[in-house]
Amino acid sequence: MHNLILANFAMHITLDAHEKQQALALLQQKTVTKRTFLLQPGEVDHHIYFVTKGCLRMFYADQAGQEHNICFYPENWWACDIVSFFKEKPAINTIQALEDSEVFYFTLSRLEELFTKVPKFERFFRILTQNGFELYQKRITGNLSKKAEERYRQFRKQYPGLEQRIAQKHIAAYLGITPTFLSLLRKEFVA
Amino acid sequence: MHNLILANFAMHITLDAHEKQQALALLQQKTVTKRTFLLQPGEVDHHIYFVTKGCLRMFYADQAGQEHNICFYPENWWACDIVSFFKEKPAINTIQALEDSEVFYFTLSRLEELFTKVPKFERFFRILTQNGFELYQKRITGNLSKKAEERYRQFRKQYPGLEQRIAQKHIAAYLGITPTFLSLLRKEFVA
Repeated sequence: MHNLILANFAMHITLDAHEKQQALALLQQKTVTKRTFLLQPGEVDHHIYFVTKGCLRMFYADQAGQEHNICFYPENWWACDIVSFFKEKPAINTIQALEDSEVFYFTLSRLEELFTKVPKFERFFRILTQNGFELYQKRITGNLSKKAEERYRQFRKQYPGLEQRIAQKHIAAYLGITPTFLSLLRKEFVA
Repeated sequence: MHNLILANFAMHITLDAHEKQQALALLQQKTVTKRTFLLQPGEVDHHIYFVTKGCLRMFYADQAGQEHNICFYPENWWACDIVSFFKEKPAINTIQALEDSEVFYFTLSRLEELFTKVPKFERFFRILTQNGFELYQKRITGNLSKKAEERYRQFRKQYPGLEQRIAQKHIAAYLGITPTFLSLLRKEFVA
């Protein structure tokens, strides 16, 4: 499990043995069962999660109660409401486990401790935030301009294999379409 | 002009005299006339701009040619297509001057040089990216859930005085409404 997160760090920064040990010492771990809420709207998000097993989702529930899935986080993804976590503001989004999952996490105080001890992590989390930004930007412009079919194609590319793991209604709520329309799309792709 | 950007750095990091001098030495400056394009879709964004005078906008033109204003950047704002700049990918957005403007800018290579010389700037640009993320998140969830009137109210709060400086059509293209509807909204607010 540690190897997975160390490999993830190594994507953006080079750490020596002592630095790796400092980072791992500040990480905590937990197991969550399917459907557990890790963040509710109005709470401050006190954790940034790294998924080692299972899958989380972040969604936004509008005033009519309609859920809009913003992102899925299977293995090797970092999950948090970036604004709520780093700015300690009430979250507008919800984070929920879609499968029984195992996660590592930093609290903000431990992450700030890590930034002080190993400043290279400023770079790591800068790049991580930029990656999150890219996903968000794709979501905005995708919804503005791309057809549902194209958004479905991108979902399958971005999350290989996830389609077989989670409920269709969650994929529909990610694509901004009805489950019936998704079912039609899928038939077209399989055909 | 240098004081404006030094005050901006000081919002997130503390620099000594030598570090300030190193940062300023890597900054470049330019003047752009109204309507100048600073970034076109398909180009890589090679500059991160800090506006000291005037106002820029970033917009996304959809396949039907409709312009959606994503953000305005008056004095004291940083402007860039974050994904295109940091990842050196073709931009999907356009950046244009809405007024005669003066800007400082870093190129990516100079910014990377700054990160090496003064690693504190990793922190500064991490926080800047998080702030950009917050704006984006507000735009997504605002468009999903808030009424046009509420979005207009937020625009006025976020950009005090800007309404009198730029064309109404640009505000309408930011709010996602027609100029006629904006005109109705404004009458309601003034009344």
